[in-house]
Order: sequence, then structure tokens, then C-alpha cells
Amino acid sequence: MKIRVRADLVYRFDPPTDAIYKIQVAHWPGQTVIEESLTTTPEIDFIQDEDEEFGARTLRAHLSGEVALTYQAVVDNGVLKGLPPVTVQHDWNDLPAEVLTYLNPSRYCPSDQFGRFAERTFGGTIGGDRVLKILEWIRAEIDYEPGASDSETTAARTFIDRAGVCRDFTHMGITLCRASGIPARAVSAFAHQLNPPDFHAIFEVWLSNGWWLVDPTGLAPVEGLVRIACGRDAADIAFLTTQGSCQLVRQSVTAEAV
Amino acid sequence: MKIRVRADLVYRFDPPTDAIYKIQVAHWPGQTVIEESLTTTPEIDFIQDEDEEFGARTLRAHLSGEVALTYQAVVDNGVLKGLPPVTVQHDWNDLPAEVLTYLNPSRYCPSDQFGRFAERTFGGTIGGDRVLKILEWIRAEIDYEPGASDSETTAARTFIDRAGVCRDFTHMGITLCRASGIPARAVSAFAHQLNPPDFHAIFEVWLSNGWWLVDPTGLAPVEGLVRIACGRDAADIAFLTTQGSCQLVRQSVTAEAV
Amino acid sequence: MKIRVRADLVYRFDPPTDAIYKIQVAHWPGQTVIEESLTTTPEIDFIQDEDEEFGARTLRAHLSGEVALTYQAVVDNGVLKGLPPVTVQHDWNDLPAEVLTYLNPSRYCPSDQFGRFAERTFGGTIGGDRVLKILEWIRAEIDYEPGASDSETTAARTFIDRAGVCRDFTHMGITLCRASGIPARAVSAFAHQLNPPDFHAIFEVWLSNGWWLVDPTGLAPVEGLVRIACGRDAADIAFLTTQGSCQLVRQSVTAEAV
Amino acid sequence: MKIRVRADLVYRFDPPTDAIYKIQVAHWPGQTVIEESLTTTPEIDFIQDEDEEFGARTLRAHLSGEVALTYQAVVDNGVLKGLPPVTVQHDWNDLPAEVLTYLNPSRYCPSDQFGRFAERTFGGTIGGDRVLKILEWIRAEIDYEPGASDSETTAARTFIDRAGVCRDFTHMGITLCRASGIPARAVSAFAHQLNPPDFHAIFEVWLSNGWWLVDPTGLAPVEGLVRIACGRDAADIAFLTTQGSCQLVRQSVTAEAV
Repeated sequence: MKIRVRADLVYRFDPPTDAIYKIQVAHWPGQTVIEESLTTTPEIDFIQDEDEEFGARTLRAHLSGEVALTYQAVVDNGVLKGLPPVTVQHDWNDLPAEVLTYLNPSRYCPSDQFGRFAERTFGGTIGGDRVLKILEWIRAEIDYEPGASDSETTAARTFIDRAGVCRDFTHMGITLCRASGIPARAVSAFAHQLNPPDFHAIFEVWLSNGWWLVDPTGLAPVEGLVRIACGRDAADIAFLTTQGSCQLVRQSVTAEAV
Repeated sequence: MKIRVRADLVYRFDPPTDAIYKIQVAHWPGQTVIEESLTTTPEIDFIQDEDEEFGARTLRAHLSGEVALTYQAVVDNGVLKGLPPVTVQHDWNDLPAEVLTYLNPSRYCPSDQFGRFAERTFGGTIGGDRVLKILEWIRAEIDYEPGASDSETTAARTFIDRAGVCRDFTHMGITLCRASGIPARAVSAFAHQLNPPDFHAIFEVWLSNGWWLVDPTGLAPVEGLVRIACGRDAADIAFLTTQGSCQLVRQSVTAEAV
Repeated sequence: MKIRVRADLVYRFDPPTDAIYKIQVAHWPGQTVIEESLTTTPEIDFIQDEDEEFGARTLRAHLSGEVALTYQAVVDNGVLKGLPPVTVQHDWNDLPAEVLTYLNPSRYCPSDQFGRFAERTFGGTIGGDRVLKILEWIRAEIDYEPGASDSETTAARTFIDRAGVCRDFTHMGITLCRASGIPARAVSAFAHQLNPPDFHAIFEVWLSNGWWLVDPTGLAPVEGLVRIACGRDAADIAFLTTQGSCQLVRQSVTAEAV
Repeated sequence: MKIRVRADLVYRFDPPTDAIYKIQVAHWPGQTVIEESLTTTPEIDFIQDEDEEFGARTLRAHLSGEVALTYQAVVDNGVLKGLPPVTVQHDWNDLPAEVLTYLNPSRYCPSDQFGRFAERTFGGTIGGDRVLKILEWIRAEIDYEPGASDSETTAARTFIDRAGVCRDFTHMGITLCRASGIPARAVSAFAHQLNPPDFHAIFEVWLSNGWWLVDPTGLAPVEGLVRIACGRDAADIAFLTTQGSCQLVRQSVTAEAV
């Protein structure tokens, strides 16, 4: 599916501070960047890196004053398919060593505390079936409600609050999958048909020898997702990280099928 | 320095469960394994892996009943030196991309909550000087007290409790370094002259273009440390991780200069 | 119902410390103390108080070394009846001013965080019906498991862990009732037929112009409960509170119908 | 000191909800209400109560739509004096039974977690001297910063964040006093010379056979404080509590010497 994505970010960095953007489309197998452009006002000489494991790209600079950044790309995101229930769950011993990390608890996903709940609630199921049951539970039990959470909200808190946004849904999903013995990690993305349009947080699970993308909010079809960055949870995939504070001036993000 | 290390671990896995040991000496630049052996009773056919980034080695198997594991090695750990105060701290923009991850908060190190405290308390210092001030603060303010913490204790909790063991000291140190803009990560080790002898948790910071090991407890000299595993915090470096529960029968760990 | 209760508590207070026991049967309307005795070895000259609101009695002293305390009583606990579903829930405006306090969150019962969950889960019900639904939920969703919690465990944590003892069940019940607009408070008690016998923690709710006792564990019949102390949560009703630490030597508690 | 106080509160209750105001000057020994008036638009028929222990007064009603409330009073608050360092601290056994409650941890004041810190930091001092040392520590270590905390912030969190408002300073002070064996409780007040003027949260400690008011922020002189309500922490003294949500339209609070 060919998708045109665009992000306009205007932030004020006052006092000046180090900043890292993760907004460019990832170089990821099956996902092809057909064209892209990046412009800023004023002009910024970014340090550009690409993560070897995820193909995630970062832009770093010491920024001051108001900085307007526009990123555009046309991407073929390949053929992404929803997770089938029959997907196989592996024993720890059959997992590739490099995915074991994604069984560990992380800042926003204290999966070590959810073993009993996961077993009680999803105990009769494994693999793709279990992930789908987890997604079903999240959609039934958590309200999508902007403003109900903030940048410190963990899955433990969302579990109590029963409300959050895509980031919280993703943390809840990752937590319950890891607690179920299924490797899971966070992905940031552009999302076709997400309404209102914005950066999206989703996650992927390791089953049947591959990573499968799922959207716990159900707000955007998997087919229309364009990967940006990947990591253990929101701590790793924020689209803008700064050492000091910064102020949002305005922001818009779009993703449209071409 | 040549060091003979030995770990005897006897655990009971009942009911049977998947288990991962991280107890072998790492393959790490400057650290040479001169000889080593691994035996178990009963015999276990482990899946053995080695992490590319850290040279950390894992032993995986599905275990049942009582399993006694003995690991021995003679290691030359090279020349490890204490951190000098003059060590230079890098701006974010001067850091290698691959160490940026170790600025992020993690399960046991919520560094995002400690920015104000770090600035208030260590604000006039940077680099090696700052890390040494952090270590000084930890040794003055936190009591080394076995039993004061458990496997869920975070640095936020230790900061309140003012007591813990090497794992907690390490989490506290990592948290304050990351909150100070210094990449920091957890390391498990054998430690010469650690008393009582046990696996040790320490951490390392990225300064002056390299990782420097520090022991926040001050219980073992840096010169006598032998690396095992490395990661964001205790979630990544546990010497034994199991999917279900397991029972300690007995355990001893030693490290002696040859 | 006539019940003979007995508590034998042997603790060591080393170093010496101030201590408060709340173990005597309360002077409470409908509950009659027929006979009672209190002996200690060595002899202790306790300061004895009785709380005006609850008829709860406290024994205070500065204690040192091993202290063995035996309390015995025969009590007629009157006619305690289980909560009928038809019990009426009052609007805030119809509540007596003095019960409003029991709508507030407390140390172990952060009811302010559970409003959405309570409404989502028990939303269609009010009054006695709602309390019974809450008890049903607790018994279905929380495992009674000694060792799963400790003296710092809050209802927020039990909600995640899905396991605990009578104290945790009581905190969970109080939290969900307060979050539902129903005043609730903790009660310590001797409990006929509790197995294994021990001090019991239960709670009571204000409905239909009176307090109704409920046992969220379902382990002891309401008819056989003998009140000791009452308060917002475990912080107020502990059978032994000390300023420093103390060591359990042995303890036994019994309650038998006469 | 004669003080004229005034509170203008305009809130919107949509959907309608039960509400409790605690804004009237307390009937408290030494504090005399010379004149007062309460008006609302529209007219509301409040249920009015007065707490026996604290002389705190509550206004309750089921409210809908926009409600403007104006309360005015002229009060002689008597002669309030700052706490002298020589004030005596009592052993538990010398405390009146009714103040023991204020040694217990509460929703926002988990004093049970701060014993070690209190002893380490204030260990050489007792009584008035210790309370003054605690106040000095708070003023040196916590920044007064509106927006740094919210209605769920506990003293444990403020201890980490090192920032907050009067409510947080009060919770921090209560927590450290209780952890030091000194009964402490929260008080809401009008405060002469508070800038910017607002409702104020302070606390009082039991020493030398009486309660002594202290202002941990140091923003208002003790002499100019006019008591409103009292309790364990902010959960008990909020000036407006509602069962559902409500929306602030505008609010102003003043206190001026006559």
C-alpha cells in the first residue's frame, strides 16, 4: 500500500536544549521509502543516525528558539496482515536469543506484576489466540480518553484507571503479552485512517517466527501502518526527546493512501 | 589480574519451567577466559547463546526437579581502572548513537523523575566529577542492608527507604547518572574480595569516549571485577530467570586472585 | 451467639520500644462482654484507653525483652445478620455527617483511583446489591494466598496482583465501596470458624441507616464475628503497633462458640 | 488579630452531582467569628453540619449548572504563636489517646516508609527542635512550583520530585513528623499576606500538650492564619469535594487584617 505521510512540528526550545527527533520512516524489510524530504526553519544541521536493529532514524541537534520541521515521504509499506489466531507461540527455548529481551519488564510495562492476572484471565489460550484475547480484553475494558493519562503513566496505572490513549493501550498490551510469555515491543508509526490523525503507538509480538504488528486501540487498520521507531516502550520511541523542557507551538501529522 | 571464579547453584524447578542462566564470564574486549568448565547434575543439554553487543552468554533449558550447576573459570580481566574525576561528559550530540538508549528510564531506574533532584544536588559538577559525587552521595545516604529490599524494588523506592543491597545501589546510581545526562547501564560480575562473596551488581557510565565501571557499594575494588552480563537494569542481568517459580536449595559464588 | 475468644501473643521487644495492642473485645452496642481477663509475663502496667466512637480499647506501654500476653473473654456478640441486597444506598446529602469521612481515600485504600472501574463493573447496581456484587467480584478475582502481600500492600497493588490475605481483601472491598459512593471502614475481629484461626480483618458499609459487617474473604460467617477495633484501614486497626521493630516469638488466636 | 476573609467560588456542575464545601471558618477555641455571611446564586438549600472534634463546618447539596458562592467573615483568630524549639515531644505513652491516630500513615502521607530517612536526617533532635529542622529541610529541599504536582501527588512523590505547592509541602511535613513519632495533621486555612491569595494548606503538630500550627511553605505568618477544616491529609480538608466531576469557572480568596 502506497502512503503519503507528513509531519509538521513547530516547537520552541527556550532555553536552548539538546533534542532528538524520531519521525522519519524506518528502513525496514518490506517497507520502501519512494521519496522523502526534510526541511526546517531555521536550517538545522542535524546529526543523522540509523539504528541497525530497527532501521529507526534519529535527528539530533542542539536547538534554540522556535524550530519548524516538516517531514514528508511517500512509502510503500508492503503487505501487512492482521494476526491470525493460529499463530504459534514458542517456548523460551525455541525463541531466537535476540527476542528474549522483549520478555523483560520495562519502564512503562511492569509485566513482572501481571503473571497471575494474565494466567487467570487468558489462561486457556496461547499464541495468536491469546494475543487476540488480550486485544479483545483491552478494547472492552479500557476507554480511549485523551487527557486521562500523562507521560508518566505506566500500564499498572492504566490497568487501574481503565482509560488512556494509544500509548497506554500499547503499554497495556505489551505488559499482558510479556506476562504471558510472548515477546512484545513498542512501535511508533504513521497510521492511515487514524482519526484524529497523529503519530500512533502500536506494538508487535513475536509469534510463528516473526514479528506481527497489532493495534490495541483498533483505531487504524494494520494494513495502513508505516513504521518509524521501535523499542521496549514509550521511553524508546518518543518522536521528540529533549534534555530540558520545550514548548509545543503547533503540530500536525497526516497519512493518506496514494 | 588473574582471577579464579566459581559458582555453585542448586535450585529446584518444581513444577518444571523454562529457565535462563546468565553466569558465564563475558567475552569482552580486554577480558580473557583462560580456562572454564560447566557441569550439571543431572546433565542438561543447554541452548547456549552469546549476545553480540555485550558478549554475554546465556544458558537456556526447560528444567525439572533439582538441578545442580557448577561453573568455574580462570579469567584475566585486564587492567580495570577507577574513574578519574577529569573524565569528560559528552553533549547528547557528541554521543555515539548506540549509547543514547542508556539515557532512557527503565523498569527499575525511573530517571525521568529525578531531573530536579540531580540538578539540585549535583548541579555544579559534570563528567567524572559528577559521577564521583553521585557515588559519594549514595554511600553517605543509603545503608547497605540485606533484607531491606526485594526483587521489585525500584530506585524510586530505594531513594525513600535509604537502604538496600548492591542491586539497589546500582539502580540508584544508574538513575542519578541518566538524570544527569550521563549514559549508564547495569553489569553483573564476579567480584574479587567481595564480602560475603556473591554475584555482584555494578554499573558503568559512558564518559570520555568509553564505558567506565563503578561499584556504588564500594564493597569490591574495580580492579577485581569480572564481567558477566550487561543491560539496562536488573531486569536484563539476572543470573537466573524462570518463567514459573523456582526454589533455592543452596548457592555459593567465589572469586579469588590466582 | 456466645463466643469464647483467646489470644496468646509472645513478642520480643529488643531494643525496647513503645507498643500499642488493640486486641480486647470492643464495647459496642449489641456486643456484651460476659467475662474477660488479661495477663502478661512479666507483669506490665499498661495505659488503658477506650475510643469513644468505636469502643475500641488500647493497651500501651514501653516494652522490653520478651513479653507474653494472654487475653481471654467470653462475649455475646448479639445478632449479626448478613447484608440483604435490598439495603438502601444513601445520597451524600442523606448521610449522617460523621460517616462522610469513610468516603475518603486512605493509606491502603486509594478509592479516588477506582471510580471508573467501579462504574464500569458494578454500574447498574446500588446499595446492598452493589456491595454483594463487589464481594462476588472479589471472591472470583482475588486468590486467598498467604505470603502474596506484605504490610505495605495497598488495594491498588492487590488489584494488580490478584492475591492476598484477609487484610488485602478488606482493603479491596473498602476501596470499591468508597469508589461507589458507599461509606466503608475496616474492622478487626475474632472470628468463629475461621480456619486457620487468627485475628481477622473485615469491613463494614453504611447502608439503610446503619453499619453492616461483611467478610470479603467469605472465610467466616458474619454471625460469629466479635469486634475489636475499627478505622479507615489497616493503619488504624493493627493488633500490635510499635515505634521500633519487634520480633514474633509465637502467637495463637482462637474463637469458639460456647 | 482581626481578619476579614472572603471566598468567591464559581463552579459548574454539569452533569449535576453531590458536592461538599468546607470553606467556612471553624468554630475553634480561641478563634471567634465576629460576623459572617453566605450567599449563592442560584439560592441553594444546603445541609449544614459542624464537626464535633474540629469545629469544621460543611455545606452539602446536590448541585447542577453554574453555582456562584460567596462567603465572607470577620474573625478574631486569637493569639497564634510560632513553635518554639524547646517544645517537648511526648513518648507514645504520654500522649492523649485521641491524638494517636495522627501518628498513622494516610492517603497522601505514607509516613511508614520514612522512618529511616527521618532518623538519618533529623536523628539528633526531638520535639520543637526536630519540627523546626524538618521545616528547614523542606524549605531548603523542595521548590515551591505551581503545576509540579496534581491532586494525586503523595509525599513519597514530592520527596522524589522536590517540587510542589502548599498541599505538597504540608504532606511532606506531616509525613516526616509522623515518621519521627510526632502526631501531625492537616489544616486548611485562610491566610493573611499569602501571595498570591488562595486557600492555604498548613499542618499542626502535637507537642507540649497542645497542637501547634506551622506553615511549611513559610509563605504566610502563623499569626494571620484562620482555620477552616482539619484532618489526616488533603483527603479530609478539600474545600470542594464532588462525587462526579465539576468545572472551575472562577475563584478568588482573600484575607486581610482589619
